[in-house]
Amino acid sequence: MRETPYQQLERRFHRLNALGEAAAVLHWDMSAIMPVGGAEGRAEQLAELKAVRHGMLTAPEVGDLLDEAENEAEGVLTGWQPANVREMRQRWIKATALSEDLVVALSKACSACETLWRTARADDDFASVRPALEEVLNLTREAAAAKGEKQGLSLYDALLDDYEPDGRAADIDPVFDALEAFLPDFLGQVLEAQAAKPEAIPPEGPFPEQTQKALGVQFMQALGFDFDHGRLDISLHPFCGGTPDDVRITTRYDEADFTSSLMGVLHETGHALYERGLPKTWRGQPVGDALGMSMHESQSLLIEMQVCRSQGFLGYAAPIMRSAFGGNGPAWDQDNLQRLYTRVEPGFIRVDADEVTYPAHVIMRYRLERAMIEGDMEIADLPGAWNDGMKKMLGLTPANDREGCLQDLHWFDGAWGYFPTYTLGAMTAAQLFDAAKTQVPEIEPGIAEGNFKPLFRWLKTHVHGKGSLLPAKELLIEATGKPLDPDIFKAHLNARYLA
Amino acid sequence: MRETPYQQLERRFHRLNALGEAAAVLHWDMSAIMPVGGAEGRAEQLAELKAVRHGMLTAPEVGDLLDEAENEAEGVLTGWQPANVREMRQRWIKATALSEDLVVALSKACSACETLWRTARADDDFASVRPALEEVLNLTREAAAAKGEKQGLSLYDALLDDYEPDGRAADIDPVFDALEAFLPDFLGQVLEAQAAKPEAIPPEGPFPEQTQKALGVQFMQALGFDFDHGRLDISLHPFCGGTPDDVRITTRYDEADFTSSLMGVLHETGHALYERGLPKTWRGQPVGDALGMSMHESQSLLIEMQVCRSQGFLGYAAPIMRSAFGGNGPAWDQDNLQRLYTRVEPGFIRVDADEVTYPAHVIMRYRLERAMIEGDMEIADLPGAWNDGMKKMLGLTPANDREGCLQDLHWFDGAWGYFPTYTLGAMTAAQLFDAAKTQVPEIEPGIAEGNFKPLFRWLKTHVHGKGSLLPAKELLIEATGKPLDPDIFKAHLNARYLA
Repeated sequence: MRETPYQQLERRFHRLNALGEAAAVLHWDMSAIMPVGGAEGRAEQLAELKAVRHGMLTAPEVGDLLDEAENEAEGVLTGWQPANVREMRQRWIKATALSEDLVVALSKACSACETLWRTARADDDFASVRPALEEVLNLTREAAAAKGEKQGLSLYDALLDDYEPDGRAADIDPVFDALEAFLPDFLGQVLEAQAAKPEAIPPEGPFPEQTQKALGVQFMQALGFDFDHGRLDISLHPFCGGTPDDVRITTRYDEADFTSSLMGVLHETGHALYERGLPKTWRGQPVGDALGMSMHESQSLLIEMQVCRSQGFLGYAAPIMRSAFGGNGPAWDQDNLQRLYTRVEPGFIRVDADEVTYPAHVIMRYRLERAMIEGDMEIADLPGAWNDGMKKMLGLTPANDREGCLQDLHWFDGAWGYFPTYTLGAMTAAQLFDAAKTQVPEIEPGIAEGNFKPLFRWLKTHVHGKGSLLPAKELLIEATGKPLDPDIFKAHLNARYLA
Repeated sequence: MRETPYQQLERRFHRLNALGEAAAVLHWDMSAIMPVGGAEGRAEQLAELKAVRHGMLTAPEVGDLLDEAENEAEGVLTGWQPANVREMRQRWIKATALSEDLVVALSKACSACETLWRTARADDDFASVRPALEEVLNLTREAAAAKGEKQGLSLYDALLDDYEPDGRAADIDPVFDALEAFLPDFLGQVLEAQAAKPEAIPPEGPFPEQTQKALGVQFMQALGFDFDHGRLDISLHPFCGGTPDDVRITTRYDEADFTSSLMGVLHETGHALYERGLPKTWRGQPVGDALGMSMHESQSLLIEMQVCRSQGFLGYAAPIMRSAFGGNGPAWDQDNLQRLYTRVEPGFIRVDADEVTYPAHVIMRYRLERAMIEGDMEIADLPGAWNDGMKKMLGLTPANDREGCLQDLHWFDGAWGYFPTYTLGAMTAAQLFDAAKTQVPEIEPGIAEGNFKPLFRWLKTHVHGKGSLLPAKELLIEATGKPLDPDIFKAHLNARYLA
């Protein structure tokens, strides 16, 4: 029997997925265990895989097959199939929007700029990377225009859509405005309240790497991580990689301080359990993939911030931590550990920021990148605008560009439109966890005794098991009853830091 | 400027190589570190990569480009380019010889048979796997006929050619005949001489895994293995994988006996240094690849058998081994370790065999597989023929098929024509090492003091650095002055075991 257009598409996307998984494992290998001398060859392997996948996705027949599948009579495509076609079309539109020349030019400009950025950051020399960054911005705007035209989107939305499908600046603005109005006063109150409490004491090490790893594994397993379908390794920048059936997280260990590595492991475990929980029957099809970066970050932050820095979790976890390292004294008390894990301190560096000040870093970057993409600000004005923003948001003035506009790789590497997803993820995490706790009363007592099954049952039903069946916005409404609501995140912060 | 046909071919084979390297790293990962739950997805990733590569190699324009490149005017292709076209043509012939239907049928038959074989071997139940093995043989003969017709080769030579390009049964027969005539008497003399010497005492453990690994790394580095371009890991079946710039060997550790793991590491290091020594400037082109299995096995056996089981090497290595484990007593003496590392004992299992009895296992399998491929023997007669062969070659009768014809995976997995390369490799190793020692007097004293540079300089010049520029037979003549000569291997055995 001849295959229908839809069946042909399924087969092609299955192959695309298998090659994408191959690339994902090679990426993991490169970041976690590859010897340095393998770098050149690995770059070629990944580039060729990318080229092959791009060719498969943009082959002339794919557009025709999509037209035919979309025009099938009512009822021919059933269940999750229409959503699958919708996701296929989105990928096809994005892949065909840019000319090969522009893709190559952008890729080269980003590589060149990233290299210059490493030196510029080390030397605190913004001027040396400025022309390269201008080139990246020009090409990014060109790409945004081409993608925007195909998708009917503004320049910024066209970029955002790559990280957050259906994400729109018009939806982000009111949410970030509300947060920005709330944060400065709130932060003042938090710092005041914190000063009135006993200071958090860091447990004293050394904490042997092997013990830290064993402890991480113990908590990962308690959360439901299955080592028959994944690994825990070491890398310079912790991440979650691999594939849904072989999901690999990494961390790094500091023998003087186990707390940040452990929280990093729990964060990545949140990402990993999202991948593992994706619907098995849609595996390999676009509809079976995870949603965009906001939802992915919401799953890591739900575990790390909502669950693992809570009183309930630390009541269960503090004795396990103490016993793992044979610790004693007040530093190991649950209350002290919770103070340590929720300490707030405004600082210059985003990746070191706490839960309260993190959104300030993100909102500032969001406003700056929109202004640059929309042509309202020049790269030359970035250092000054950055420092003004920090002063306004957190009352701090960076002493130099290294702790200012040179700190993050994103823009220099072409990742424009990515930043807002961090804070959207934090807010989504708060909203999902709030709904879950309300709907399932067993969740909170479960966490307090190390039983995470009620929580993950809810997440599986409302998030993980849905894949990309619904756009993220609709999924959030189905799961929580309303669109993203900054008041829920504010309520979480109030409860944790001021109650 | 428009690319010449040759330049187009170079570009295509460069891409083919990058995707082949990607597959090689994924294979390594699967065998060394992949969690079990990744198996299904990995099989698909590798199958898709294979399909993509096959499509790239058999695309209609490739045959035309090869025709054009082969018909370029004298002098247009220079240096190594004609050899590169020759190797490209060989790959194209092999890839286009089989219909896709036959490739798929054979692949499925092998997978099914391999699965049945695992149970059949465990249960000592040849009858249960016999029909599946018959199916594999039928399809293998069909494939051999198709390949043989394209290449003008007999059935057996067509199969052998996949593992040993230009390998021919007509060349193997006289060599194996000479060995077969020599071995039985020689073995008797060796056993008699061995009985007259003190018995080899195994050093007493336990030998901690970490110490074994550190010792392996120390010897690997002494031999020239560069950990910026490779790794040492653990796997059930030790192997050498990865790519020339990221070459990864594996071993397994037995805490009661370090000696066999260590020799395994040295064996795989021989393979690895061949890959690392391939000419950098031809990287990614067929002419830059290693030669067939005989030459590859010669490089591992040259290091393991010729070098590392010699008196000279053990004089240097014995004190290092003793010091690594803090050993003392006569078991750690160089003479005892050398007796241990050259102990001869006829047995049923090929992979456990010593250097003297190993060829008997191989020659028997070579004769049996030829008879089956050429239609002179039925699968039904294999168990009896196997036992007759063992009786004749080594004077032993297997008590069951598990230690008889069920012991090796090769035939059940479709690897017909592979076996002879083990013993051809052992003989090639002896001949290359003999020539190297004669041509460069510094090699042997170097080994005795742990200086392997003179040896590897010779190997780089005469073997590693040649890639596939010359067919293996010609390379051996250029390096040693003559074709494969069984007398050199016999002389090596005589010198080591009867002198």
